[in-house]
Amino acid sequence: MQNSFFKKKTNIKINDILETLKLKKQKTNYKVNDIKDLDAASLNDITFFHSNKYLEKIKKTDCKLVITDKRFTHIIPKNIKVLEVKNVLVSVALISSLFYPKALDDNLDIDVDLINKKKYEKLVSGKNVLVGKNVKIGKNCSIGHNTIIESNVQIGDYCNIGSNVIIKNCIVGKNTKILDGAIIGKKGFGFFPSKKLNFRYPHIGAVIIGKNVEIGCNNTIDRGSISNTIIGDGTFLDNQVHIAHNVKIGKNCIITGQVGFAGSSIIGNNVMIGGQAGISGHLEVGDNVKIGGGSGVIKNIPSNSKVMGYPARNIRNFLKDNKDD
Amino acid sequence: MQNSFFKKKTNIKINDILETLKLKKQKTNYKVNDIKDLDAASLNDITFFHSNKYLEKIKKTDCKLVITDKRFTHIIPKNIKVLEVKNVLVSVALISSLFYPKALDDNLDIDVDLINKKKYEKLVSGKNVLVGKNVKIGKNCSIGHNTIIESNVQIGDYCNIGSNVIIKNCIVGKNTKILDGAIIGKKGFGFFPSKKLNFRYPHIGAVIIGKNVEIGCNNTIDRGSISNTIIGDGTFLDNQVHIAHNVKIGKNCIITGQVGFAGSSIIGNNVMIGGQAGISGHLEVGDNVKIGGGSGVIKNIPSNSKVMGYPARNIRNFLKDNKDD
Amino acid sequence: MQNSFFKKKTNIKINDILETLKLKKQKTNYKVNDIKDLDAASLNDITFFHSNKYLEKIKKTDCKLVITDKRFTHIIPKNIKVLEVKNVLVSVALISSLFYPKALDDNLDIDVDLINKKKYEKLVSGKNVLVGKNVKIGKNCSIGHNTIIESNVQIGDYCNIGSNVIIKNCIVGKNTKILDGAIIGKKGFGFFPSKKLNFRYPHIGAVIIGKNVEIGCNNTIDRGSISNTIIGDGTFLDNQVHIAHNVKIGKNCIITGQVGFAGSSIIGNNVMIGGQAGISGHLEVGDNVKIGGGSGVIKNIPSNSKVMGYPARNIRNFLKDNKDD
Repeated sequence: MQNSFFKKKTNIKINDILETLKLKKQKTNYKVNDIKDLDAASLNDITFFHSNKYLEKIKKTDCKLVITDKRFTHIIPKNIKVLEVKNVLVSVALISSLFYPKALDDNLDIDVDLINKKKYEKLVSGKNVLVGKNVKIGKNCSIGHNTIIESNVQIGDYCNIGSNVIIKNCIVGKNTKILDGAIIGKKGFGFFPSKKLNFRYPHIGAVIIGKNVEIGCNNTIDRGSISNTIIGDGTFLDNQVHIAHNVKIGKNCIITGQVGFAGSSIIGNNVMIGGQAGISGHLEVGDNVKIGGGSGVIKNIPSNSKVMGYPARNIRNFLKDNKDD
Repeated sequence: MQNSFFKKKTNIKINDILETLKLKKQKTNYKVNDIKDLDAASLNDITFFHSNKYLEKIKKTDCKLVITDKRFTHIIPKNIKVLEVKNVLVSVALISSLFYPKALDDNLDIDVDLINKKKYEKLVSGKNVLVGKNVKIGKNCSIGHNTIIESNVQIGDYCNIGSNVIIKNCIVGKNTKILDGAIIGKKGFGFFPSKKLNFRYPHIGAVIIGKNVEIGCNNTIDRGSISNTIIGDGTFLDNQVHIAHNVKIGKNCIITGQVGFAGSSIIGNNVMIGGQAGISGHLEVGDNVKIGGGSGVIKNIPSNSKVMGYPARNIRNFLKDNKDD
Repeated sequence: MQNSFFKKKTNIKINDILETLKLKKQKTNYKVNDIKDLDAASLNDITFFHSNKYLEKIKKTDCKLVITDKRFTHIIPKNIKVLEVKNVLVSVALISSLFYPKALDDNLDIDVDLINKKKYEKLVSGKNVLVGKNVKIGKNCSIGHNTIIESNVQIGDYCNIGSNVIIKNCIVGKNTKILDGAIIGKKGFGFFPSKKLNFRYPHIGAVIIGKNVEIGCNNTIDRGSISNTIIGDGTFLDNQVHIAHNVKIGKNCIITGQVGFAGSSIIGNNVMIGGQAGISGHLEVGDNVKIGGGSGVIKNIPSNSKVMGYPARNIRNFLKDNKDD
């Protein structure tokens, strides 16, 4: 999916990868298809493993080539070739750049031009709408004033896009609304800190927004680094919500104002989150979870729980311990 | 007040309402004027009652027609006709749509055009300012670049509107400043969740901003659903504040950066709120209250109190219990 | 530094200051150069002292003229002339207005016009970019669509400015990125509350952004009141961060999404701050500090500490006290 926005080099071979990682080249050279995370990687791809959180996934993958470090080499299944490196994520960034050399540059799309309404079926368009190359907009959509839709974005039928919206590297399902001032699809806040010069890693993922979704005013939704950022069907986001790279939000969730998600967390279906709550990175929140306003979620939350507090815990215990004084 | 922005149907009769709610029609048909909340409803209107919080108000209303459910039917005063329904708020949404069929559509205003400065007295206007039909702008105002003022908005004398601002369904008092990037007057985050398709209810209220007010950069202020969202005279809001539908903020309040208000809360006069604090929905905060930064207010706060914490409580107790370790 | 954006009156004499403060004029009149804070004031300037926090600084200043109140008059070094007033900050505001009569007006820059790309070396510019008078843009920069760069702003070489950005009263170092929707350089949220009409004080400072910095989407960074707001070299800010007036952030800091800084706090180098954390005003945070997501910092934090919680405290104690229940 992510490949629609960033042109992939199709001639990368295993020895190109080994050379980039400063590992010893091998005799038999062969083509590697793409770099993907454990969920998406298949037979001819390269993937990576950097946390015991993903132990079940490494056991089930079809992928036969993995980047990891010496802490994990011994637990990688025997039928997978291991490329042992010092820093997995830095190595992933380097290999991503190898496949997608243009995914680092995130500047303005100079290919946009004033929208040509005639190209789209039953489109209602505002003033000064800028649209890039190869943009698809379904029938019966509306697009507000001063909105920018960069090249290759796809928008389904019956969508309403507000004014002053910026959309890039994004696929939007049908009957979805994106309200004024939302900024969708820029690269995430991902880099390797360095006192010399922070090393930005490429963001080759997209933002995939389902159908019947509503994205609130002034939301910021970053695209994924190696996988996609996903907003499931029927999910509604209120104003000033921030969603970092690689976050996956399920279906029919209700996310109220000023909620923030750090990177790579996975939220189930039918989850309700109160205003200003924050969800740390790399967590899993199950289905039907209710998270009280202002909560700070710093560990996984099982399905069907109600939590509140900072750190978030069982809501009954939180309220019991916080009676009036 | 709300009727200035959404055209009301003037021929709605009691039997139209009964039919919409799937209740039995009655012999004597008569016109109903409007749907309003308990504060605003008068003799010929229809109102609704869905919480004991509003018990004092139902006792005092002049309105003679109320939607409620069986939990409350017995406590409605005898001189008020009760329409007993399963879900009060869904019924209110249906009846609102009956009176205001266009208050659900919240797309761009296609009637805007480049501002004609000559129409307004001593106006300083930026580049690419878009203004809708029937907009009133008082004398000696300024409007920044790329700002959009939708149809029917009214702005008082001596106001300064920043750049990249979007204003709709809003009345602004004199000598008020609205800073860059603020988005004012869109429909609130109000709907009935459904796994099939969330049911959006109409927002027939406006945003009413007093005089001598300052609205900060990138604020989002939603219009009311059934009543108005109100910002009182002399109140100052810092950047990135979010104000949900139906919130009423009093006079001379100081609301610092990133504060958020959930829907329908009522804030008194001279209230000071520190950065990032959150106020839950349907609460009352009295006059002269001070709320510390980062607090989470989840219950009513009496006048003249100082609170802090999550949940917010007496500030002395909060600080005493949180001494150094 | 601040003087580049607001024209200073150069003929202010000590008796003008005394008259403005309603103090008794003196026989020997002489010119005063400028009003500055204790860090920046030198021999011919006027400065102010209003808190014991700045005791070390008043001892070391070269400045010979200070505004203070009677609580502090006796601790001002003997070689400094004291102007004793009732309210130091109100007096500072009055004297700032005396030197910089135009620093109160913060309306749109009517001098902007569509950018003339030929004026800048190797510039990539989007559509509808507005640029004021006397703007400097270094070589090899890009500027996104609908962005406004007001008069006198300076941007270094190799910078990338996003779309829908507003920059005023700001100097940007080389190789810095400012992402979509950021609003930089407006006056801070500074005023003296009054039930009649809040009294806004002038903001004569600028925003000084270093080199290799990244400013995230929809950030709001206010300019300083009497000193500058500073973002140090190599510091990265994520989306929806709010930085109030006079805040000084050191080098190589990492500030994640939705973090907020109240006014005048000083943050060291290599500080990492998790999402949604808030830093109160007038605090000092040392070097190499780690602040957990969601924390509320309400006191100084020494270098090399790790803190978390609300209020923020030693992270080990916070996590120990918040085990599962």
